[in-house]
Amino acid sequence: MSNIHFEKIALIGIGLIGSSLARVIRREGLAGSIAIATRSAETLKRAEELGLGDSYTTDNAEAVGDSDLVIVSVPVGSSGLVALEIADNLKSGAIVTDVGSTKASVIAQMQPALPTSVHFIPGHPLAGTEYSGPDAGFAELFTNRWCILTPLPETDPEALAKLAAFWEACGSRVDRMDPQHHDLVLAIVSHLPHLIAYNIVGTASDLEQVTKSEVIKYSASGFRDFTRLASSDPTMWRDVCLNNKDAILEMLGRFSEDLASLQRSIRWGDGDALFELFTRTRAVRRGIIEAGQEVDAPDFGRQAAVSRTGSN
Amino acid sequence: MSNIHFEKIALIGIGLIGSSLARVIRREGLAGSIAIATRSAETLKRAEELGLGDSYTTDNAEAVGDSDLVIVSVPVGSSGLVALEIADNLKSGAIVTDVGSTKASVIAQMQPALPTSVHFIPGHPLAGTEYSGPDAGFAELFTNRWCILTPLPETDPEALAKLAAFWEACGSRVDRMDPQHHDLVLAIVSHLPHLIAYNIVGTASDLEQVTKSEVIKYSASGFRDFTRLASSDPTMWRDVCLNNKDAILEMLGRFSEDLASLQRSIRWGDGDALFELFTRTRAVRRGIIEAGQEVDAPDFGRQAAVSRTGSN
Ligand SMILES: NC(=O)c1ccc[n+]([C@@H]2O[C@H](COP(=O)([O-])OP(=O)(O)OC[C@H]3O[C@@H](n4cnc5c(N)ncnc54)[C@H](OP(=O)(O)O)[C@@H]3O)[C@@H](O)[C@H]2O)c1
Ligand SMILES: NC(=O)c1ccc[n+]([C@@H]2O[C@H](COP(=O)([O-])OP(=O)(O)OC[C@H]3O[C@@H](n4cnc5c(N)ncnc54)[C@H](OP(=O)(O)O)[C@@H]3O)[C@@H](O)[C@H]2O)c1
Repeated sequence: MSNIHFEKIALIGIGLIGSSLARVIRREGLAGSIAIATRSAETLKRAEELGLGDSYTTDNAEAVGDSDLVIVSVPVGSSGLVALEIADNLKSGAIVTDVGSTKASVIAQMQPALPTSVHFIPGHPLAGTEYSGPDAGFAELFTNRWCILTPLPETDPEALAKLAAFWEACGSRVDRMDPQHHDLVLAIVSHLPHLIAYNIVGTASDLEQVTKSEVIKYSASGFRDFTRLASSDPTMWRDVCLNNKDAILEMLGRFSEDLASLQRSIRWGDGDALFELFTRTRAVRRGIIEAGQEVDAPDFGRQAAVSRTGSN
Repeated sequence: MSNIHFEKIALIGIGLIGSSLARVIRREGLAGSIAIATRSAETLKRAEELGLGDSYTTDNAEAVGDSDLVIVSVPVGSSGLVALEIADNLKSGAIVTDVGSTKASVIAQMQPALPTSVHFIPGHPLAGTEYSGPDAGFAELFTNRWCILTPLPETDPEALAKLAAFWEACGSRVDRMDPQHHDLVLAIVSHLPHLIAYNIVGTASDLEQVTKSEVIKYSASGFRDFTRLASSDPTMWRDVCLNNKDAILEMLGRFSEDLASLQRSIRWGDGDALFELFTRTRAVRRGIIEAGQEVDAPDFGRQAAVSRTGSN
């Protein structure tokens, strides 16, 4: 029995996400053939060396010709450009989707450029690591991770079901959400944590009283967890900030307000207020462990946890 | 050959740190006998059930009688009280140390109470987890972690060497530091990260637009890493905040300034400034990996990393 979901799949962008898709599509036999396109000859060569697809080109339009599914996996700031490039070559009835970390901006960029003869269904797999490029991908990246689809009002239910089934075949659990709501949720669970991590690592490396080598040496005390997030791809995160500005500023504003109040409690030695906050937050952790999103073990579940899953 | 470093060791406080000490002292045979004292009958009973020591009491003064080494492992806000309680019963020439996460305040609390006939040498093992109590401890907690001793100007070099050798026998790497400098370093590598984590988890659980169950469901996107830190013991962290106020406020002030500037870059769409910050922070991560404090692997080194080590 064949597992083929789409006769030909085009992958535009072959970094962490694109190359993980290539690997899982190949492993599960989800496509008759895989066409790979990326911007630079260098990345394309590496994808070819890794044997990620069946055809390779730096011409995005060429890759999408005859494709039944097109997955755009480029930094969100480039999605409008890619849509313009591929628009005229898309096969009628094809599904076009993306994996970008912001949704409203991607829709605003891509939808006007795409022909109405294709099904445009934006998506976002909540799966990633702090690494990038074709070497960083692996077939298990999406296993048990959520993939959020943000269909448009006019989206064809059949095409939507087909795309959802594809992501499930990649190992994902599929959810649907309104694009604006997606952007708010991701602003708090992903974008703000990354920004805060970048910010604290920046602060720590600029101090006069404490040297950078001390920060590095004693990082295991809590700081280290932030450095992993803060080593994520700069282009991706610049684009996320520029393309989910309103939701991020909203969450940043709330965070800063709360921080000012925490600062005040410390300044005035208000132990009860501190104790109250430090107790309240434990419930969230318990919820995450109960929801199976983390393992409760004395080694932080790092040995037992499903490997290779993390930030996005 | 005997490994005995001290004929009798008294452990005051038998939570995560105290019970980990009991376990490693036992495993390595570092003491002739271990006397255990803790505040509550309940915790004492549990310590006895776990067989952590040779004698058990809720009377701190009783435990220290005849002891050659006394290790105080209680929340830093209680160290002054403990010093007062044990002062009159300390054996002349004994070494008294602690494991508190702040040092200047512990010294200010304990030193005036202790007799000059004992060697008071404050210390802080940079090893911990987000769990507490006698069940949470394990003998490997200190393996390859730093233990910072902050000797006073009058500290006897021989006593200092003896204490350092003891911590090394527990698996630690020993460092010396000025207490004030310790407090600044820990404010940035440990205290600020924990506060920021508590704060963001607090912010996330208070939103109207995004439900707590959505935050939990999608936490793997970055947020989850913060919840581990934010589930640490509230009493310990309240005491840390109240006892390292100046250094923490200093670091919080810098963090907030930097965050305001980041916010401004997002508001004005200054992609170059964002890109610059997001690039600069990667060097710190590289430094940590090179220093052997973290493993560089696609699964974040969680499988390969020395297990059970973490925050403090
Ligand atoms: N990383 C995560 O954790 C994560 C998680 C979920 C979603 N996402 C989203 O997934 C997307 C891709 O991220 P990634 O981590 O896979 O990034 P990546 O590893 O840096 O790869 C990006 C890929 O996009 C290509 N590219 C850039 N501009 C292009 C253009 N104009 N035309 C064609 N190809 C172009 C790059 O090509 P060259 O190398 O040839 O320049 C590269 O192949 C982003 O939208 C991101 O928001 C990321
Ligand atoms: N947790 C970490 O990650 C970590 C890392 C490095 C250093 N530290 C420092 O280590 C110290 C202990 O932390 P922990 O994590 O071991 O805490 P813990 O697991 O909560 O245990 C605290 C222990 O102190 C006892 N205690 C409290 N007040 C006391 C008093 N007045 N007299 C006698 N015993 C008293 C408690 O007794 P009862 O249960 O009987 O009330 C309990 O046995 C703190 O100063 C902390 O800053 C912690």
